[in-house]
Amino acid sequence: MDEAAPRPARSMFPWLVGASQVLGLASVVLTGVWMGHYQGGFAWDGSAQEFNLHPLCMVLGLVFLHGDAILVYRVFRYESKRNVKMLHGIIHLLALILSIIGFVAVFDFHRTAKIPDMYSLHSWCGMATLVLFCIQWVMGLLFFLFPVASSWLRATYLPIHVFCGLVLLVMAVGTCLLGITEKLLFSIMPTYSLFAPEGVLANVLGLVLVCFGVLLGYLITREEYRRPPNPEEESLSVHFKTLTEGGSPSTP
Amino acid sequence: MDEAAPRPARSMFPWLVGASQVLGLASVVLTGVWMGHYQGGFAWDGSAQEFNLHPLCMVLGLVFLHGDAILVYRVFRYESKRNVKMLHGIIHLLALILSIIGFVAVFDFHRTAKIPDMYSLHSWCGMATLVLFCIQWVMGLLFFLFPVASSWLRATYLPIHVFCGLVLLVMAVGTCLLGITEKLLFSIMPTYSLFAPEGVLANVLGLVLVCFGVLLGYLITREEYRRPPNPEEESLSVHFKTLTEGGSPSTP
Repeated sequence: MDEAAPRPARSMFPWLVGASQVLGLASVVLTGVWMGHYQGGFAWDGSAQEFNLHPLCMVLGLVFLHGDAILVYRVFRYESKRNVKMLHGIIHLLALILSIIGFVAVFDFHRTAKIPDMYSLHSWCGMATLVLFCIQWVMGLLFFLFPVASSWLRATYLPIHVFCGLVLLVMAVGTCLLGITEKLLFSIMPTYSLFAPEGVLANVLGLVLVCFGVLLGYLITREEYRRPPNPEEESLSVHFKTLTEGGSPSTP
Repeated sequence: MDEAAPRPARSMFPWLVGASQVLGLASVVLTGVWMGHYQGGFAWDGSAQEFNLHPLCMVLGLVFLHGDAILVYRVFRYESKRNVKMLHGIIHLLALILSIIGFVAVFDFHRTAKIPDMYSLHSWCGMATLVLFCIQWVMGLLFFLFPVASSWLRATYLPIHVFCGLVLLVMAVGTCLLGITEKLLFSIMPTYSLFAPEGVLANVLGLVLVCFGVLLGYLITREEYRRPPNPEEESLSVHFKTLTEGGSPSTP
């Protein structure tokens, strides 16, 4: 009977993870259809087709892969922490590479078309998100994958790292929504208010992205989906407690 | 020495709350300046001046007051829970009234200017946020202010209510950013890319709103700023535990 309480919430977990993957993939597919079908496809020649790679790379990298990189800590919460850490870092690296390709695509297009850079709210939020994402990745690498920081520093930084990861995911989703609005008003302003199919498709993409973000936020913050304490974490806590109480730790 | 560890984080609390209020008020002032100075002021006659009330009411109601209504649980975490609950409900009611005035203003303006309603991503997100905000307010009233729900239902619903409140605040901020982008592209598209002062001011407003949202999120989710357990909550937990373990509660 002791295990009866958390069971209903736990049994929802695979369904919620499945739903998050459906939403994430749907957002990538919808972006592909929007750019591929309505906006003329993809290229790498400084044209509008090169710009079309920008939304696709950002949704795939900074939203879908970023979200999944965070989610591995919940999905593989009973696996070896070292392996999960590696997976977390590698998926984030893929997300970072895709995001940088997406950024290069839009700056390349702007240069060819002589469009000024960095004047819109979308560009400000996007640049802030990417710069903070890079800092977060490097800090994560230094603190958790390489033994640069002390146990005390790692324990202090961990909740900040987790909070910033979720904030960056939300900022990425928000920036995508700003990008959708900008792109629609630049390209189909006269027909957007007449519920043109392209506008409806892009609006639906926006709502799918919001639902993905909300579901990820729920899965990450829900207490019973967290990684259960293991001996490694226990020793870290003891180490932290010893240090803050002024004593010297028994193990280095 | 036992209380040494959490002290540094606690001592930041008043500064962080102060910063959140500065950011919240700054966002309201910036919206007022944008609409009052650059967009021709305010009126209630179906004109563009009536539209100008829409951003002001939404930023004041659905962002600033909404955020502060949540924050009272952290600021007054050592006060009587009943009084804090009342304050939380009353500030939310003010937020709701302002939001409805803001919604009426934009629909009124659209009717006079013969602009279609509800076609943009901003309008879809805004409508979803307001409808969910109303549902959240009514549910909060039924569950926590009037004794309609059982203790078990209240304990089960509480984390969902808290999560949804934060999601709605983030959705409100995101929808404001979409509204800023829409308004700028409708009214100053030719000069926006030349860094027109109005565009820069509105972009800064967007960043201030993001910072407000991030800071509120931090204050709400940080463990040491939570309300400490009190006898009322203890009895609720016991009640909940008894019920989930199959026994009957000793108190009704």
